[in-house]
Amino acid sequence: YGKNTIKFLRLHKEGKKHFVKEVEVCTHLRLISAQEYLEGNNSHVIPTDTIKNIVLVLAKKNGIPSLEQFAIDICNHFMTTFCQVMYVKTYVQEVPWQRLHENGVPHIHSFICVPDGIRFCEAEQCRNGPLIVFAGIKDLKLMKTTQSGFEGFYKNEHTTLPERHDRILCGELFCKWSYGECKDFDFDCIWNKIRECILEAFAGPPDCGEYSPSYQKTVNSIQMLVLSKVSQVQVIEVVLNNTFYNVLDMKNLGLTNDKEVLIPVEAPYGSCACTLARK
Amino acid sequence: YGKNTIKFLRLHKEGKKHFVKEVEVCTHLRLISAQEYLEGNNSHVIPTDTIKNIVLVLAKKNGIPSLEQFAIDICNHFMTTFCQVMYVKTYVQEVPWQRLHENGVPHIHSFICVPDGIRFCEAEQCRNGPLIVFAGIKDLKLMKTTQSGFEGFYKNEHTTLPERHDRILCGELFCKWSYGECKDFDFDCIWNKIRECILEAFAGPPDCGEYSPSYQKTVNSIQMLVLSKVSQVQVIEVVLNNTFYNVLDMKNLGLTNDKEVLIPVEAPYGSCACTLARK
Amino acid sequence: YGKNTIKFLRLHKEGKKHFVKEVEVCTHLRLISAQEYLEGNNSHVIPTDTIKNIVLVLAKKNGIPSLEQFAIDICNHFMTTFCQVMYVKTYVQEVPWQRLHENGVPHIHSFICVPDGIRFCEAEQCRNGPLIVFAGIKDLKLMKTTQSGFEGFYKNEHTTLPERHDRILCGELFCKWSYGECKDFDFDCIWNKIRECILEAFAGPPDCGEYSPSYQKTVNSIQMLVLSKVSQVQVIEVVLNNTFYNVLDMKNLGLTNDKEVLIPVEAPYGSCACTLARK
Amino acid sequence: YGKNTIKFLRLHKEGKKHFVKEVEVCTHLRLISAQEYLEGNNSHVIPTDTIKNIVLVLAKKNGIPSLEQFAIDICNHFMTTFCQVMYVKTYVQEVPWQRLHENGVPHIHSFICVPDGIRFCEAEQCRNGPLIVFAGIKDLKLMKTTQSGFEGFYKNEHTTLPERHDRILCGELFCKWSYGECKDFDFDCIWNKIRECILEAFAGPPDCGEYSPSYQKTVNSIQMLVLSKVSQVQVIEVVLNNTFYNVLDMKNLGLTNDKEVLIPVEAPYGSCACTLARK
Repeated sequence: YGKNTIKFLRLHKEGKKHFVKEVEVCTHLRLISAQEYLEGNNSHVIPTDTIKNIVLVLAKKNGIPSLEQFAIDICNHFMTTFCQVMYVKTYVQEVPWQRLHENGVPHIHSFICVPDGIRFCEAEQCRNGPLIVFAGIKDLKLMKTTQSGFEGFYKNEHTTLPERHDRILCGELFCKWSYGECKDFDFDCIWNKIRECILEAFAGPPDCGEYSPSYQKTVNSIQMLVLSKVSQVQVIEVVLNNTFYNVLDMKNLGLTNDKEVLIPVEAPYGSCACTLARK
Repeated sequence: YGKNTIKFLRLHKEGKKHFVKEVEVCTHLRLISAQEYLEGNNSHVIPTDTIKNIVLVLAKKNGIPSLEQFAIDICNHFMTTFCQVMYVKTYVQEVPWQRLHENGVPHIHSFICVPDGIRFCEAEQCRNGPLIVFAGIKDLKLMKTTQSGFEGFYKNEHTTLPERHDRILCGELFCKWSYGECKDFDFDCIWNKIRECILEAFAGPPDCGEYSPSYQKTVNSIQMLVLSKVSQVQVIEVVLNNTFYNVLDMKNLGLTNDKEVLIPVEAPYGSCACTLARK
Repeated sequence: YGKNTIKFLRLHKEGKKHFVKEVEVCTHLRLISAQEYLEGNNSHVIPTDTIKNIVLVLAKKNGIPSLEQFAIDICNHFMTTFCQVMYVKTYVQEVPWQRLHENGVPHIHSFICVPDGIRFCEAEQCRNGPLIVFAGIKDLKLMKTTQSGFEGFYKNEHTTLPERHDRILCGELFCKWSYGECKDFDFDCIWNKIRECILEAFAGPPDCGEYSPSYQKTVNSIQMLVLSKVSQVQVIEVVLNNTFYNVLDMKNLGLTNDKEVLIPVEAPYGSCACTLARK
Repeated sequence: YGKNTIKFLRLHKEGKKHFVKEVEVCTHLRLISAQEYLEGNNSHVIPTDTIKNIVLVLAKKNGIPSLEQFAIDICNHFMTTFCQVMYVKTYVQEVPWQRLHENGVPHIHSFICVPDGIRFCEAEQCRNGPLIVFAGIKDLKLMKTTQSGFEGFYKNEHTTLPERHDRILCGELFCKWSYGECKDFDFDCIWNKIRECILEAFAGPPDCGEYSPSYQKTVNSIQMLVLSKVSQVQVIEVVLNNTFYNVLDMKNLGLTNDKEVLIPVEAPYGSCACTLARK
């Protein structure tokens, strides 16, 4: 297969108000034959440069109504235009430009980049197969300073970790989910709803939180809440890249450290992941 | 000289509410003699490990009331404790954890990382000299989709750039300013006020913006507004790393592109910088 | 599943001569049940900290005879020690320290880091399944300044790329291959032989090179040469991340540019990949 | 001031043999007036795009005989062509392409990227001042597995570091030196000689090494050897970014670790630097 990446900005105006989408689009293609590899026969090969042009022409003609719709449009174009294409996948990722506000007033043409979780989506299709749409969020960094522990784990002669019932829970979240049959979904609205579910399941109620017995259980809580609240989601994958913090032992410096000063642990660096599907 | 960097988390509670500061502290020291370099005599050398311990002990004892106060405390400690220290500089940078909100309600112990401009400060002192405090913001990415141009520049046989009166203005801002005599400043409040000035000077009024004839003039507008609105600032340095966007020529694809599709230009990559002081 | 990464140095001496291996080891585990996710029951969970200890104890006891043997030892340990482990995969990557030479004389204890292609390997096993070993090289950057073209590709109304019969071929290579039944392989020797095959197939004969009609054909040539020369390789995957260079048009600067000045193209960024197995 | 960066490839042939230089050039300019900042008057501004064109035209016309000569040519061009330029500095850095060898035979047109220390240079000039040339090496990673210690340092109540007489010495070197009056220097030859001095001073004799009592003394040894062996060097700056390795305590795992397994310490991360001039 071959893939390529292109990054661009799409502007549009409604009256005097400006709207901006900056996206990175990566298109994977697999052709019916492999003659370009085996024989050096390029007659079926669609050059990177042509793929770039197609993505830009579609952006110019249709705009980017939502990341998901744009990815669907690109897949459809390749499947219907090129009979030598066996499989196409389009990944679209957004640069998180947000409208600037001055004293609460939105600015008509100024934006600030706020990378608190990056939105992405994927559309993929095999010839004669259904078009499947995924969406997700990545690089979302979250922390709970209490209501987290890790106890009752398996122990043997190589175990040195003490049990803890009040540790820091901190990590970088990656979530990706698939939609079933994509009818007339409001992709922007659903994505925002799912993001709220993720934050709620991670943090628990604002006044007291909710105890997490492990990174793994927190992963599962996020999946369960999304599946229960958002009916369009069929399968959800969550990966949590953990950052561990150790309470620094300050005894040899003559001090008692009551979980006030903590040091991030670079290694071992762990992550846990789970994929859960609706029955 | 020698320097070292340490990263840690400082937690504290008020009732059941948790507060978190994660900082990276870099301490530079220059000693009175250079005998450790010239003769391999280490008797004046303060090991990296000891510097780390001092920073952590100060964080444990005093907390981090503000980045600036913490940097001042560290400088003072080194100057008063070690007579072999000739010069000390402390740089403190914050990981931008923000309290999580659920439906507008702040969470008592959950946080999200929102890197829309990183706050930092510096305190430095020579033996027998004054303690000087700097503060700043970096990695602040801003964009204006109109009200920007670049015309009337110098031209000769190597000029190929056309004049433009409606281009994209986009860049990554670095601002650093010095305070005069630091009395009882409310460093957090001043920093927030300066950040607002920067955004206002970059964007102009929310309903119409303000025309920028160059990156350089925008840099100057930011400096002028900060100096006029924030009396504690003595000198302000601004660096703007430009991202250029080219309107894609789509004529050979049979389309007219009216500043709708733009491509970021990786090279040449430019930046402009200026330092301005109060008279 | 869960995974974690640990980085460390393993030293050993033969007489006065020192040998060093610095490796990054990532271990993936999948357990028989998912009760830690679903029920928050941690009784089967092997903490990250324990995994780290096991890797370090094995390095201490056995050393790192080769990356592959070390990965095999780790897999075996987890499978035989923990009956709750369903699947284990160990990835080992080397920091490319090379012995320093002074005027051709090897130094007994000094090393320099030379990252011209990073060696890695993987061992994986399902309970009751065979142990499979992979090895590979990544981040290997190569360039041919001639003997490369791209012609006869598919064309339609979105094609703007001209045909070229003398372009630059430049890219970053990733190769990964699997061994069949691992008997008493000399993994270091085989790896070096495969690296030579890759370079030879990419570059062609030293005095004249060999024409490449596409990135895809070069990928295939590498695979074919490795499979024909190294009988231990069963399957080989090659990914070539292309860097395109455009001959700069200098006509408007009054100059003819005969492939003398070229500019790297940041986007579109392409890559091609293929997996080939022995019949 | 303003600066900009451009990256490109310069090819040339001697008979059928190809030669390649890929460089990144960064040009800083300061103009006589600051009217573009203060008044938005662009009439003296030399656009980034023009600077790029000049660099590329010079590369096309003169080639890149050495990095230093190319930087000198660029400085001279700006000073003699633009009377509004007050100061110019040109930084040139090389992508470390090396000719590929097959069984010891050099290939006529194939290259491999070997980043074991990056070569760079700088030329700078103020109007009416001399042209000064610097050269250097960066990102050079070196390690000694013995013949290094750190003892006799300053101690107080915050000291926890034990004295060590046999530790690992590992770091990333940055060296930058200035030449005096640049007559007809063979810059390539001098640079290679200095690189050899750096390695020799770091490592000591190949059969036994030389004891280093601190990172600082190693920095000084490098400077002293370069100044004594290379008469063209006037001033030399060395920065050594240390990577510390701790011998892992394996007592609680029932093992004695005789400096066999070591863990890199991420923080505190230290560096030491010194600038030394010929008397």
